[in-house]
Amino acid sequence: MFGSLAAFGSTVFKSAADAETTPSAGGVASADPTKVPGRLPSALGQRSAFENPGRILKTPALSGSSRTPLEALNGNLTPADLHFERHHAGIPNIDPDNYKLLIHGMVERPMAFSLADLKRFPATTRTCFIECAGNGDIGLDRSNIPDKVTPGQIDGLLSTSEWVGVALSTLFREVGIKAKASWFLAEGGDAAVMTRSVPCSKGWDDAMIAYCQNGEAIRPEQGYPARLLLPGWEGAMQIKWLRRMEFADRPFMSREETSHYTDPLPDDTARIFSFEMDAKSIITFPAYPNRLPNKGWWEISGLAWSGRGSITAVEISTDKGKTWQPAQLQRPVLSKCTTRFRHLWNWTGEETFLMSRAIDETGYVQPTLQQFIAARGPGTIYHTNCIRPWKVNRQGEVTFGLTEVV
Amino acid sequence: MFGSLAAFGSTVFKSAADAETTPSAGGVASADPTKVPGRLPSALGQRSAFENPGRILKTPALSGSSRTPLEALNGNLTPADLHFERHHAGIPNIDPDNYKLLIHGMVERPMAFSLADLKRFPATTRTCFIECAGNGDIGLDRSNIPDKVTPGQIDGLLSTSEWVGVALSTLFREVGIKAKASWFLAEGGDAAVMTRSVPCSKGWDDAMIAYCQNGEAIRPEQGYPARLLLPGWEGAMQIKWLRRMEFADRPFMSREETSHYTDPLPDDTARIFSFEMDAKSIITFPAYPNRLPNKGWWEISGLAWSGRGSITAVEISTDKGKTWQPAQLQRPVLSKCTTRFRHLWNWTGEETFLMSRAIDETGYVQPTLQQFIAARGPGTIYHTNCIRPWKVNRQGEVTFGLTEVV
Repeated sequence: MFGSLAAFGSTVFKSAADAETTPSAGGVASADPTKVPGRLPSALGQRSAFENPGRILKTPALSGSSRTPLEALNGNLTPADLHFERHHAGIPNIDPDNYKLLIHGMVERPMAFSLADLKRFPATTRTCFIECAGNGDIGLDRSNIPDKVTPGQIDGLLSTSEWVGVALSTLFREVGIKAKASWFLAEGGDAAVMTRSVPCSKGWDDAMIAYCQNGEAIRPEQGYPARLLLPGWEGAMQIKWLRRMEFADRPFMSREETSHYTDPLPDDTARIFSFEMDAKSIITFPAYPNRLPNKGWWEISGLAWSGRGSITAVEISTDKGKTWQPAQLQRPVLSKCTTRFRHLWNWTGEETFLMSRAIDETGYVQPTLQQFIAARGPGTIYHTNCIRPWKVNRQGEVTFGLTEVV
Repeated sequence: MFGSLAAFGSTVFKSAADAETTPSAGGVASADPTKVPGRLPSALGQRSAFENPGRILKTPALSGSSRTPLEALNGNLTPADLHFERHHAGIPNIDPDNYKLLIHGMVERPMAFSLADLKRFPATTRTCFIECAGNGDIGLDRSNIPDKVTPGQIDGLLSTSEWVGVALSTLFREVGIKAKASWFLAEGGDAAVMTRSVPCSKGWDDAMIAYCQNGEAIRPEQGYPARLLLPGWEGAMQIKWLRRMEFADRPFMSREETSHYTDPLPDDTARIFSFEMDAKSIITFPAYPNRLPNKGWWEISGLAWSGRGSITAVEISTDKGKTWQPAQLQRPVLSKCTTRFRHLWNWTGEETFLMSRAIDETGYVQPTLQQFIAARGPGTIYHTNCIRPWKVNRQGEVTFGLTEVV
């Protein structure tokens, strides 16, 4: 499958004689863990003292964010306590026994649902990504593109979870939404009372109200006790701490869909209601701040995702975009979910650029920055999904290479 | 899809007039979360103060266990800090920089691998369950079957994670296992120096050495920094803190595969090397200690799994085994992974018994306790996979019903 695997061993493996015991040393670990009794079972597990992952924080602010450290993760899932955050007035503290969701407006039977009510409905499970519409806007000030940025700093407003909740279509039938209702306002119970308009068609398709995340109750940072989940659509629409849905025959033109989450276009119009997250990918290894200690075989690995369905291919260039080869996609590939890709690369030791481009089931191909700007103009902030190149120099140092590969 | 959904609303939903605001009260929550700034973003997320899940502990012991609270979870995954534990000498504290895995015996090139070495190989991702061979042995002392036990107390030595690691077949090729090698000894770096024999065929099939769990570094309780993963096989073989693999042309007959993890059979022989976990299922809702407040529609939900491949069906009886109906299986259904099943049930208010039985891709059907004992005799402890019935009385109280449905 991988050709001559002995090639892996030539540079990095030590001899067997070096390792006939498993010594442990250092400030924290036992000198020899086989000679001392271990820690007892407990109610809640802990990370190893040698592992200290954390979300990437700028200056904490009420209208602030934290990013998932993509470079510290592997596989496809995001641990709940590392899921990215983007709040508009901080994280509210909600008593689930007092939680209610009001559904009203153009409906036959306006109703309020307790959390227990929501949980009594038939449930559904879905693994999908949530991505902030502003994810990956780094580099758009082309005079000031940084090179020392990690995958998480670039694209860490992206996380993947298994969600459980009630399908919105189930609630639509319960309240009887009227034939002329075409949009609903989703309103959060945070201090921003965050609001967005959502087309009813998404509710009939695959939207849900989620109350579980990765097996357990949804975390406060992700909307406890219940949030709107709109698979594949921009994160800000997926209202957390959801407390109200009002149905109407038009969008509500709320602040967060007019003054924000809208992009000016070159023809002096604006791109509004840009719901779907376009296909994107990023190599998470090797990437800044990795340094490859030697040439030879390395596995390039990263994530690809599309808000329009499944990833059908990820192509890798190890020669600055001259040639492209298909990466392996980790199965199962799920619709509107991140997909881990992997590609074996034999580094010659010369300077080069590594690039990935995602292709989704609609045939859409992740564009270069040049193609992206040609389509959207220079003023775009949101939905920036251009190819993210990494430069590898002859010392094996990896830096963000967008200034040199546009 | 679910028939008349208005039927759900008749008994549990409150009127809209009750819920035009979202008040919050209580010792911890804000009086009105929309009127106070929320908590700021942070490096690590926390559970809501209203949620306090924990693993189920008996008296903590070095050779002890803790169980996953299946009744507190939904979906398919187990949060890493709620993954069950079963240790034979506690949890060792291992410095990953000093970790080495020695592979020797009947191999062409004995080698020791550092953690970085293991991570340099091509990686693979797999979502699967791990289940202790002793899971579900409750009730086998037929004179003393409890009725007030939760799903986690019965079957909580079962957890599901996404794992990332290197395929064992890749390492087999690297060291060149000899043609006559048919088994290997896997040895842990804990104070028990836990050992088990594993057939090489499992390594060529789907075994791996896992170093990531649910996206992040594997947790100490699950084998940090690396463990053996044998999808579908009994948990005790999947050696945690793996430090040595020795190849031979026979099993090693270690203590943990002779004096333990072996069952006497009625014909005075013993069942040894019982690798695969048989198909099993358990209803996690409704279950003890739930009490259904009223009759009408309820969604029965639970988990089904098989060590021999995919679950193809789960059948539900709501009349003490007289009739059976197929449950909905949550997609995607993965091989050797738990599968969430759901089934709508209209409770008449009369006493009844709820039962589930799993069917896997080999055609195997989860047996009744009577069938199980007929096949294995009364002395079996391990691999107890009989149907788990729940009794619902006219007050809606749910208790374990194995004494009344054998």
